[in-house]
Amino acid sequence: MSELASYIRNVPDFPKKGIVFRDITTLLKEPGAVKKVVSTFYEKYCDAKIDKIVGVESRGFILGSALAFKLGIGFIPIRKKGKLPAETVREEYSLEYGTDTIEIHKDALQPGERVLIHDDLLATGGTMSAACKLIERAGGKVAGVCFLVELNFLKGRDRLKNYDVFSLIQYDHE
Amino acid sequence: MSELASYIRNVPDFPKKGIVFRDITTLLKEPGAVKKVVSTFYEKYCDAKIDKIVGVESRGFILGSALAFKLGIGFIPIRKKGKLPAETVREEYSLEYGTDTIEIHKDALQPGERVLIHDDLLATGGTMSAACKLIERAGGKVAGVCFLVELNFLKGRDRLKNYDVFSLIQYDHE
Repeated sequence: MSELASYIRNVPDFPKKGIVFRDITTLLKEPGAVKKVVSTFYEKYCDAKIDKIVGVESRGFILGSALAFKLGIGFIPIRKKGKLPAETVREEYSLEYGTDTIEIHKDALQPGERVLIHDDLLATGGTMSAACKLIERAGGKVAGVCFLVELNFLKGRDRLKNYDVFSLIQYDHE
Repeated sequence: MSELASYIRNVPDFPKKGIVFRDITTLLKEPGAVKKVVSTFYEKYCDAKIDKIVGVESRGFILGSALAFKLGIGFIPIRKKGKLPAETVREEYSLEYGTDTIEIHKDALQPGERVLIHDDLLATGGTMSAACKLIERAGGKVAGVCFLVELNFLKGRDRLKNYDVFSLIQYDHE
């Protein structure tokens, strides 16, 4: 287990009974921990010819933006339906109950641009799998996907087999 | 008008007819523009003894996080109701129709910490006014509030008279 894990707060029974929520806000307020996170991502991706960082709304915006800044490349948001003002590409995906939809601006990417997608946490992989499809439909190439936290026991990685998946903190059980 | 304004996309009739939406995503994907924004904020605040950057969900997370990283200080999110997992302080505020509620973790700040609050856009000032009250109720001191874009004609600054308000791009009319 990474030393970074000590900055994560475990909140029992959120958002519902039996779930231990891994709260990253306690890490985000510690600049030394954020620096370590961003530097580790930077080392992995600085030579990977990444053109853009895409962050998934909304916690994915936080470290995604800091990483884009550190890499000196642009940042693009993937948002929930109806939030982006210009023309979008959409991807619907299944949740435990019902569906959700994410969007990216249709002109956000140049054809063939290499994209690193960031979200704070990999659980079942449903959102990130949809995000990867969205990038490809918007003309980009998914050069990698990265997370601060990965919940191994939910096997999200299995849904992202075609992609290079990287995470900094892993949990083997609830 | 700032040269930065050329990176903002004007989207007519979003989110409803007659409104010109100032879309910052076209700026965020240009690293030179983001660097200019973050450097300008940095110059203003680097000697202001800021302890924490607070970003308002969700667009305020993007540049708020990059600025916190550049300043080498911690980042704290203010979120919509029900999103933060641990114990929170809440502030309700009025919208054109109805109300909205924002939250911060109760233990996010140490007593007396000096906070710079960031959001992408100052319109009527309702959200930022509520954010300032929230910081004060959570034990912090609002050392400043900063925006990428300010819609002067909506006079949001009038609602923030007790605070140091700074914005990089201003619009005098719709």
